[in-house]
Amino acid sequence: MSEKRMVAEKIPGYTYETADAARSPISLKELEELKQSAGFTSEDERYLRAAGEVLASQTKPLIETWRGTIAKLPHLAKHSRDAEGKPIARYSENSGLRFQQWILDTCFRPYDQDWLNYQHEIALRHTAAQKNQTDGVESTPFIPLREVIAFTAVINDTVKPFLANNGHSREDVERMHSAWCKSVALQTALWSLAYACPPFAADRSSKLE
Amino acid sequence: MSEKRMVAEKIPGYTYETADAARSPISLKELEELKQSAGFTSEDERYLRAAGEVLASQTKPLIETWRGTIAKLPHLAKHSRDAEGKPIARYSENSGLRFQQWILDTCFRPYDQDWLNYQHEIALRHTAAQKNQTDGVESTPFIPLREVIAFTAVINDTVKPFLANNGHSREDVERMHSAWCKSVALQTALWSLAYACPPFAADRSSKLE
Repeated sequence: MSEKRMVAEKIPGYTYETADAARSPISLKELEELKQSAGFTSEDERYLRAAGEVLASQTKPLIETWRGTIAKLPHLAKHSRDAEGKPIARYSENSGLRFQQWILDTCFRPYDQDWLNYQHEIALRHTAAQKNQTDGVESTPFIPLREVIAFTAVINDTVKPFLANNGHSREDVERMHSAWCKSVALQTALWSLAYACPPFAADRSSKLE
Repeated sequence: MSEKRMVAEKIPGYTYETADAARSPISLKELEELKQSAGFTSEDERYLRAAGEVLASQTKPLIETWRGTIAKLPHLAKHSRDAEGKPIARYSENSGLRFQQWILDTCFRPYDQDWLNYQHEIALRHTAAQKNQTDGVESTPFIPLREVIAFTAVINDTVKPFLANNGHSREDVERMHSAWCKSVALQTALWSLAYACPPFAADRSSKLE
């Protein structure tokens, strides 16, 4: 059912399914438990595929919406800018493509070991361990976890009208949106692992409990 | 506009607005920024009050719904049980009342310093720093942050039909639900602070950045 769909032929820094991606500190069994904790089911997987078909042609306006919000908030905007507050073109372009691709991966990829690993890679790139490194830029040293979690509310709220753009019934849009929100909660839960205390964060293969 | 509404005259361990509650490590200015990050506005506050009027008579069935989900998942159920896996009556009763009260506080309380502080108190009670202490029980030492974050998806998904139980228009239910989800993201963001690395977590007044 799942497939690899790309927003561009080549995406700088996109290490999904490669040995360059981090290794998640949790197991597939723990991922299964986490899916249950979020109420994420095989029906949600189906509705996410449907959501992906709707969003695939809208990944660019979607991230423009999200970045529009970020640009208006100095405490968020600074995380993609340099010390003088100037935008960094390469950072913006590369991470923009990866942000678009994240939408497709959320909807189309199987939530397997590669997906789990790349979640951890995404997370590390927001922490002091790896921020700026992928694109070789100089910006803030990390994005506080609280800001990452809070911003998911904007992502979830604003994705909804985009889900309605292909003429699906209100009921189907609701179900696609519910599946999307569960997936984002699941992913945010996984991202929190990268913010855990050393030595856990440093040892990617260790357990956090 | 905001008011103090209680699910019971006396709630054991409910230290809201008292000196016994923890002090949040972030400032009111940082809370304002976080509200912006979550897209939480004064309109959301109004819709949360409306949601509170709908949910006030349903706090018991709501937490029964959430606890029903938890009871079916051993990796979550264990956090309210003893080492032999047996339920702990006092823990269940006291935290159940506080869980019900959390619904009212989410909807009716002003998000001020007292609210901010009690968010941190709630969070600490899920961490190794304070779990079990409020009720003097012996259960698991802490609930992993990832499980807390993931479970908010269940809370958000299942609250929706309850919001529709007072005959509001579909549009109003949508707006109440959107406000609820933003508040839960905001609160989850605040809870993550208690899981931050020592020395930050130990020194409640310190900044995390």
